[in-house]
Amino acid sequence: MQDFISTRDLSAASIYNILETAEAMRFKQNFIQGGKFAANLFFEPSTRTKTSFQVAEQNLGINALDFHLEGSSVVKGESLYDTARTYEAIGADLLVVRHACDHWHDQLVGRISTPIINAGAGKGEHPTQSMLDLLTIYQEFGSFENLNIAIAGDIKHSRVARSNAYALTTLGANVCFAAAPGFEDESWDIPYVSIDEACDSCDVVMLLRIQHERHASVPYQTRTYLTDYGLTIDRERRMQNHAIVLHPAPVNRGVEMDTRLVECDRSRIFKQMENGVYTRMAIITILLNQWGGNHENFTEKCQTIAT
Amino acid sequence: MQDFISTRDLSAASIYNILETAEAMRFKQNFIQGGKFAANLFFEPSTRTKTSFQVAEQNLGINALDFHLEGSSVVKGESLYDTARTYEAIGADLLVVRHACDHWHDQLVGRISTPIINAGAGKGEHPTQSMLDLLTIYQEFGSFENLNIAIAGDIKHSRVARSNAYALTTLGANVCFAAAPGFEDESWDIPYVSIDEACDSCDVVMLLRIQHERHASVPYQTRTYLTDYGLTIDRERRMQNHAIVLHPAPVNRGVEMDTRLVECDRSRIFKQMENGVYTRMAIITILLNQWGGNHENFTEKCQTIAT
Amino acid sequence: MQDFISTRDLSAASIYNILETAEAMRFKQNFIQGGKFAANLFFEPSTRTKTSFQVAEQNLGINALDFHLEGSSVVKGESLYDTARTYEAIGADLLVVRHACDHWHDQLVGRISTPIINAGAGKGEHPTQSMLDLLTIYQEFGSFENLNIAIAGDIKHSRVARSNAYALTTLGANVCFAAAPGFEDESWDIPYVSIDEACDSCDVVMLLRIQHERHASVPYQTRTYLTDYGLTIDRERRMQNHAIVLHPAPVNRGVEMDTRLVECDRSRIFKQMENGVYTRMAIITILLNQWGGNHENFTEKCQTIAT
Repeated sequence: MQDFISTRDLSAASIYNILETAEAMRFKQNFIQGGKFAANLFFEPSTRTKTSFQVAEQNLGINALDFHLEGSSVVKGESLYDTARTYEAIGADLLVVRHACDHWHDQLVGRISTPIINAGAGKGEHPTQSMLDLLTIYQEFGSFENLNIAIAGDIKHSRVARSNAYALTTLGANVCFAAAPGFEDESWDIPYVSIDEACDSCDVVMLLRIQHERHASVPYQTRTYLTDYGLTIDRERRMQNHAIVLHPAPVNRGVEMDTRLVECDRSRIFKQMENGVYTRMAIITILLNQWGGNHENFTEKCQTIAT
Repeated sequence: MQDFISTRDLSAASIYNILETAEAMRFKQNFIQGGKFAANLFFEPSTRTKTSFQVAEQNLGINALDFHLEGSSVVKGESLYDTARTYEAIGADLLVVRHACDHWHDQLVGRISTPIINAGAGKGEHPTQSMLDLLTIYQEFGSFENLNIAIAGDIKHSRVARSNAYALTTLGANVCFAAAPGFEDESWDIPYVSIDEACDSCDVVMLLRIQHERHASVPYQTRTYLTDYGLTIDRERRMQNHAIVLHPAPVNRGVEMDTRLVECDRSRIFKQMENGVYTRMAIITILLNQWGGNHENFTEKCQTIAT
Repeated sequence: MQDFISTRDLSAASIYNILETAEAMRFKQNFIQGGKFAANLFFEPSTRTKTSFQVAEQNLGINALDFHLEGSSVVKGESLYDTARTYEAIGADLLVVRHACDHWHDQLVGRISTPIINAGAGKGEHPTQSMLDLLTIYQEFGSFENLNIAIAGDIKHSRVARSNAYALTTLGANVCFAAAPGFEDESWDIPYVSIDEACDSCDVVMLLRIQHERHASVPYQTRTYLTDYGLTIDRERRMQNHAIVLHPAPVNRGVEMDTRLVECDRSRIFKQMENGVYTRMAIITILLNQWGGNHENFTEKCQTIAT
């Protein structure tokens, strides 16, 4: 057999050779060198989050299985559940999913036994982004209690705002929102302030990306958004000495913030990206360890690493 | 040299340094750590088959080279032969090809010295799918002699039906087809039965996916297809106790089979996917070993694994 | 924690567990197994160059981070600079960039500290292609002094012609151009000859690909281009015994050269592709070593390899 093109001329002996070898592959796991696999199922565009997961996985010795929407069976009509079950059957030890539905996980959680990480859910949540934001704040301030944190921008459509509001509240921070008219989300019990108040008084100003791709029409003037609601040079100057600026990126330069501030001294934007790798390594490690029921071992290892 | 941007300011010494280093790379293979490479050239969408090959390759320690049609030179008009020869020249030890032409392999076999695996050829063959189907049947029944196997659905457009009909006939199984009018393939000497007869009497009912993407118009009523030609709850109940259901997936839920049966007790659909990895590992191993002229060694190793 | 879906129900203890683990990941680099990362940022289609870099990187034990334009944040409007800075922040040790702009590197060089390799710049330069062309010539002739080299075809739009003209001139070769009317580039001080003169007298005839995708209209007759300006069977027969033919590929078969000559004895087209891997391994090795300030070590290692 030089090539494997057709079953037409395969002898019974050749077929049985293949079947016996396949069974051998199945039973001798030590023949397998590949280790664990993570399936990165991004149904929406991503540079940062997807690459960050790839680097995190490869840093942990996990093979990253890439998924390309336009080259997948999704174009034949396959559902999210069937796609996820397929990756599980093929050998994924972890599913990382980004999808335009706010609640895509309702289709999977409890029905798929492989651990699932939410890498962005429509206008729902983006919990790994929240964890990397928290890590960046933690490195700066060492705690969250009574820290004044403003989340400013397109609150209504932002999964980043939602995930951070939950977690920061849990950790005892004082969270406030700043938003242009039409960008408020009435369902929260969080005070709104002006962008000027936010910049003058907060320890952390977390800007959000305007989600152009989620707006049917634009409820604000792009031309004046920076001046009216964004981080201008003037507002940045009035911030407290120790205060920092976050943004999940990609930044709409000149809209949410003056382009000259993207890499200013207060900006932690590229630090956030670097922290994204460590954060995702942490979440994957915790999930895979607990999944294996090996929590004590993990805690111990963690302590070893941490000390 | 901090970056490598232009040849304009490269000194002759710098150029010779590059050329000498390149020659050194060529001669000292032990400097190379990468091992073998497989090129997965999928000119048609695929989730299962492509990912299955990736996992199989990485399990065997082979690097998977991904190919993206829209990002390739194929958009500049490059032929299949030139693309394949290119991957061979760059270092691929194995070519895995899926292409819309029924006989794409006629352009490559005998002209390319690297082993080629057919991962799907238009309405032609899909021999690795057949092998994983056989493995699933073999695990269940231990042999194929006189096993009654119905292949039901879009026979005419199905490369899965064709590859399985060849191989199952070779192995001594009794194969029958069940198809809606317009889905029959007259070129086979295989008996046709109704879907009811197939379900009542067969040990294996292998359903096929309706290839929407290969039909100019639809020769059946989607609304009544399940009732008229598919696996309904009622037909499943009438199957023999030991009988199993296969489907190459993705399933058109509610068309070829009732959606509640996709994961029923008789269904081996996700088992098939799992077996796909072992089967492809087996085929790759056999090809690469025989290619290296090391058949005895392989057989011995195989026996070691199998015992 | 079985899955990681929302921050809503995460306890403060769970969050701190994640943050502490992430910090541990950051500080214990020896926990990381992944080694180095290269980001291959191809904003234009490529089969050969992209795959060649992937193989070169994996041969050197460097993880290749793939970038897919249509699945990236570039579709959200992210600039080349922000994309490159992002990959740097996430952990890329090397950026390989192909982009349609002739001078994209002006946006990056000096602003990004990670080494950058130009993998093709619009109608500007393509220096790694030049190095592999040089290696192929060097393997054949052992030197460049007084070698007669014709570069024939679409000079005006060719980044390959530009990079080779610079480097070959530096190395003391006698370079001439052959071009159809409209394909000349007046900015060079290099003599033009007819394709007949080029074939009759040169040691190397380097054909160029007609860049259909860079022409608004076609300034020549495709039907007669081969006869008028290409490598016909007749012209190939009149070449000197030792003379060789190069082409960067993909070849427009029957346009730049007779399709029967693509793999003729004089053709080094697939040899060029093979050499592309060694050349890129060399350039990467040199960049990463010098970047680390470890030039002496590198030279020594290089000598060890070369002897």
